[in-house]
Amino acid sequence: MKLATLKNGSRDGRLVIVSRNLQRALDAATVAPTLQYAIEHWSQVEPGLQALYAQLNAGQAASAFDFDPTQAMSPLPRTHQFVDASAFLNHGNIMEEAYDLNVKKTPGIPVLVQRQSDDFWGPCDDYPLHSEADNGDFEGEFAVIVDDTPMASSPEVCASKIRLVMILNDVSMRAHLFRELQMGFGFINAKPAAVFGPVAVTPDELGEAWGADGRIHLDMLVSRNGEWFGHPNGREMDWSFGELLARLGLNRNLRAGTILGTGTVSNKAAREVGSACLAEKRALEKISTGDSTTPFLKWGDRLCFEAKDAQGQSIFGAVDHRFVPFKAGH
Amino acid sequence: MKLATLKNGSRDGRLVIVSRNLQRALDAATVAPTLQYAIEHWSQVEPGLQALYAQLNAGQAASAFDFDPTQAMSPLPRTHQFVDASAFLNHGNIMEEAYDLNVKKTPGIPVLVQRQSDDFWGPCDDYPLHSEADNGDFEGEFAVIVDDTPMASSPEVCASKIRLVMILNDVSMRAHLFRELQMGFGFINAKPAAVFGPVAVTPDELGEAWGADGRIHLDMLVSRNGEWFGHPNGREMDWSFGELLARLGLNRNLRAGTILGTGTVSNKAAREVGSACLAEKRALEKISTGDSTTPFLKWGDRLCFEAKDAQGQSIFGAVDHRFVPFKAGH
Repeated sequence: MKLATLKNGSRDGRLVIVSRNLQRALDAATVAPTLQYAIEHWSQVEPGLQALYAQLNAGQAASAFDFDPTQAMSPLPRTHQFVDASAFLNHGNIMEEAYDLNVKKTPGIPVLVQRQSDDFWGPCDDYPLHSEADNGDFEGEFAVIVDDTPMASSPEVCASKIRLVMILNDVSMRAHLFRELQMGFGFINAKPAAVFGPVAVTPDELGEAWGADGRIHLDMLVSRNGEWFGHPNGREMDWSFGELLARLGLNRNLRAGTILGTGTVSNKAAREVGSACLAEKRALEKISTGDSTTPFLKWGDRLCFEAKDAQGQSIFGAVDHRFVPFKAGH
Repeated sequence: MKLATLKNGSRDGRLVIVSRNLQRALDAATVAPTLQYAIEHWSQVEPGLQALYAQLNAGQAASAFDFDPTQAMSPLPRTHQFVDASAFLNHGNIMEEAYDLNVKKTPGIPVLVQRQSDDFWGPCDDYPLHSEADNGDFEGEFAVIVDDTPMASSPEVCASKIRLVMILNDVSMRAHLFRELQMGFGFINAKPAAVFGPVAVTPDELGEAWGADGRIHLDMLVSRNGEWFGHPNGREMDWSFGELLARLGLNRNLRAGTILGTGTVSNKAAREVGSACLAEKRALEKISTGDSTTPFLKWGDRLCFEAKDAQGQSIFGAVDHRFVPFKAGH
């Protein structure tokens, strides 16, 4: 099943069901007005939403309309918790080698970062870049949305609470990031609003790409200004989603609507398959030549993030947006 | 005006107006069903809520009932953003001296920590301490709730968006905290659910204690197992609330319901006025004698946090709770 949230002037938007081929949409209000409501009442609403999805895919939904991703908000335009992992150790290893960082990780314990979740941006909305001097960057990631998960649940129980899968651009300001990382208290100015792809999908939509190992076996397709930037695959994640969620919930409940991101997708063959963020490419350049030549984000840059199934069909739609100068009152 | 949220089985609870003396309450549903709703529609709902508050204080509200803080949730049982500052530099200075920490702060930039906001606990609810070995601790703090605040607003504009003031116990697990601080990505297992005092109040309820300097001139009264632990005053905060919010919102919007905490209240005369957390007292002991004797939280410990006006009237009610062994399914 595929779900999206369309703009209607409200903070949480309007839930719609989207056809498997992303061409058509159907209002879900008779079952659930918003995705937050759906996640909070999943067992009650899922059968009704699935029935509408079947009608829509069969071309039997009389009130269906064309799905326009430019009218989409992030599937959850806001939620009560967003945690981003750094679950591809390869990325951190490259960064630490290039910049001689001494990140004191504990072996076996994943890096998890508490993040703001009050104001996600729409997948095709112009994104206000506060300053080019902030060394703006992107991070192409996968993410899951979970149902209520009691404190101290096992990785297996946590995995069973995953309801939906998404992609995102985790927008990052590197000028602030190094300062904030050294200080130790996590990210504030380094991580402004994140931007999720237009369509959230149930795990079964991924078929075999929703791996038995609790990882997403899909390429994260990243382009900058229409040019290929990278296509690293999610299968190299160093922890499963269940393991990441279990660590997060060690001593606290996770409430319905919690989003867990993977961190920037990164592969050991990064020099061949490319990266999902500028910082990693710049780090590889620095390791090779002593200098980084790929520039950070410029005003006017257009970025695209997508993932496709074995038949080449886009699964989540695309984060496809431009970075523009910040104007007060935007 | 004083507001509280009573348990009704829902995630956001039921908004009530509380009398100035905290004795009586009145359902607010005719104006706003929840505090989240009220914050999101503040300019529309505030006059109606104030009218009910006036009736209640005058003893003219026929449907008023006794206010029972044990039935209260945190005023916002969940919200979309919680950021905690470490705005009393004195606290960090003591910790850094005692433990020879090298926290790389940038002069003039406050420490702000992104925190989870999906599951705050009620002020009088038993609190499940996952393990005594986690070196459980408390932090007595003040906090504000803000309305929508556009990106890059000035400290003055940010200050004008403050709608309500609260107190909290920012429960902290020191065994995880040192590990996570050294790693650099902020706090996850170090900071389980926070617990807010039962009553959120508009700034005017603080009278002159809501200082023209954007600080709260009130003692944070902390007791452990019925014994005085400390009463540091909020006036020594090194940044105003407006300055903290402006830094937080440098490159992002802050949405209605965002909570900003002060960090543990701490005074330069800590050896006389006491501390609002165990870690600071233990650090002072270590500096004095080379050893810390005050124990971390034990199962069964009872903690109380409160602030009173010049007449001795409790302003926010009390966080008054016990720490109990964690049981699965709690």
